[in-house]
Amino acid sequence: MSARDPVPIPTIRWARGGARILDQRFLPRRETYRDLSSPRQLIAAIRSLAIRGAPALGVAGAFGVALAAREAIRLGRDPVRACRRAAAKLAGARPTAVNLSWGVSRAIERLSAMESARAGSKALLASLVEVGEGLIEEDLEASRRMARHGAPLVPAGRPVLTHCNTGGLATAGLGTALAVAREAFAAGRIPGVVVDETRPLLQGGRLTMWELRRWGIPARLICDGASAWAIRSLHVGAVLVGADRIAANGDTANKIGTLNLALAARASRIPFLVVAPSSSIDPETPRGDGIRIEERDGAEILRASGWPRGEGASAFNPAFDLTPSELVTAWVTERGVERPPF
Amino acid sequence: MSARDPVPIPTIRWARGGARILDQRFLPRRETYRDLSSPRQLIAAIRSLAIRGAPALGVAGAFGVALAAREAIRLGRDPVRACRRAAAKLAGARPTAVNLSWGVSRAIERLSAMESARAGSKALLASLVEVGEGLIEEDLEASRRMARHGAPLVPAGRPVLTHCNTGGLATAGLGTALAVAREAFAAGRIPGVVVDETRPLLQGGRLTMWELRRWGIPARLICDGASAWAIRSLHVGAVLVGADRIAANGDTANKIGTLNLALAARASRIPFLVVAPSSSIDPETPRGDGIRIEERDGAEILRASGWPRGEGASAFNPAFDLTPSELVTAWVTERGVERPPF
Repeated sequence: MSARDPVPIPTIRWARGGARILDQRFLPRRETYRDLSSPRQLIAAIRSLAIRGAPALGVAGAFGVALAAREAIRLGRDPVRACRRAAAKLAGARPTAVNLSWGVSRAIERLSAMESARAGSKALLASLVEVGEGLIEEDLEASRRMARHGAPLVPAGRPVLTHCNTGGLATAGLGTALAVAREAFAAGRIPGVVVDETRPLLQGGRLTMWELRRWGIPARLICDGASAWAIRSLHVGAVLVGADRIAANGDTANKIGTLNLALAARASRIPFLVVAPSSSIDPETPRGDGIRIEERDGAEILRASGWPRGEGASAFNPAFDLTPSELVTAWVTERGVERPPF
Repeated sequence: MSARDPVPIPTIRWARGGARILDQRFLPRRETYRDLSSPRQLIAAIRSLAIRGAPALGVAGAFGVALAAREAIRLGRDPVRACRRAAAKLAGARPTAVNLSWGVSRAIERLSAMESARAGSKALLASLVEVGEGLIEEDLEASRRMARHGAPLVPAGRPVLTHCNTGGLATAGLGTALAVAREAFAAGRIPGVVVDETRPLLQGGRLTMWELRRWGIPARLICDGASAWAIRSLHVGAVLVGADRIAANGDTANKIGTLNLALAARASRIPFLVVAPSSSIDPETPRGDGIRIEERDGAEILRASGWPRGEGASAFNPAFDLTPSELVTAWVTERGVERPPF
């Protein structure tokens, strides 16, 4: 296997008759895997962010249904009824994560088909596991395509800057924007990656820094406020980010901090590339101002500065921001490269 | 005393025969004052950042010499010799802080004058204390002038955004950029202040948030990466920052994160105001690229993301950045308002 054909991170896999996840709560300190054997355990793992990221949660949804079947078979109960009962609970573990309920639906469709075919318990379980494994394969293939489409857009000989975690840990193992960076590095095109911390939850500092080390890619961590200065003084060649949702006109909702990076890239006249699966494009929403920006608990920010809850200090903690279409150099999906106007 | 004539924060004062400081290490959790009775204690307080900020350190330098005289008198030693011996140690407590050694020099000049006049020990001590108290008065007056010059430049009816700590805690009690915000609030011109955390040391989240609460000014904390989005969604009217050094052409070196804010202000077409005493202007340096940007230990950043020292993860941790002159709307000093070209 060459550097161009990397081993994916086993973010979530079916192993020993259960779902095995890489528990992200302990990164970067410890690489801990956990074997989950019931829907209840999986729901707890999703709620605690032991597993996160839209594509990874899609797989989790499907495996969750398979876990319900497995548990029922072991206890001598009806697996079909158990799966249908578990489905709603699984989908509700993180209500805003659409991929999670989409993964559950994919498994339930298969369940109905197997039920009509009067399949036996073992065949049913195997078939549900197959759904999750199919989602893993689909996602890995989409990542490989995004990487191939995106890498040639990165200027040669200069590091790229990336935000949050858009790598294997957020997906079935390879990633979106970070997969482009890895491909560009493997092709000898870039010397390394600059990563911003991504306050308040530090996904850049904890997860992306860990991944880059695992991929063997030189990485330097910066504070979010240092991005414009780092672009100038480290001669960054491009900014690569993911997307949570892309409006029909190309306005892009992504993790808070993305708009600052787009402005810094524009000021230094370097490409600002959005890398995301085509499922992130929302043709129903004409412009970015139609996307509701979720606001999270201010305590998430205040804690770090020593403000205990209820001390009266107030924070503004939007989870995402909107980058207007005109600041994006190109959108990269598994289908290819889109340039403005979107 | 009206709201327009505020009570300064007693950052450093001469009290009960010694230097009393507000120990900033415990903010925002506890407002703790410490009475320092020897140069050794004061040096420890400076080194541990219990007291910080250029103008505040100037006062500390002068009071440090007075503490040397006081200690010598108490022990029956020669105060003049003790002061001269303490001077070098005081000035070296933080070698890059020019104001500290400047404050020491002011006190040593007075010492020489008193020595020539064959003043007695008690008169000598009183005169050295007077030097420090004179610096406090000068600094408070400069702050009042900056506040008066700057406040009318702030658009009415919208909050301002500020960075790091440029308030009473960094000065003798009133501040630079934050003094402008307070004056604008007292005049009924602005509804409140948006504060960014200012990673990695969180001076915004810890110190500025504490000060604004003390002044009774509504404040909201944001992550540094959220600044451009906060400017748009909270309808911020102006960005106010301090300066560490201003080149002859107006290029401005200030705490890391300032350049991002200047770009965000420009993108939203709101004023970006630099507020600093005229002593920050360096006519010897023609342009910003002549200013050396100090890089600090990467561990300061890596810690927060769970990377222990020596784990091989690397960070880029510049203490300051440079904002080009053309991004500054106006520079406000105690002398008045300068607009580009500087």
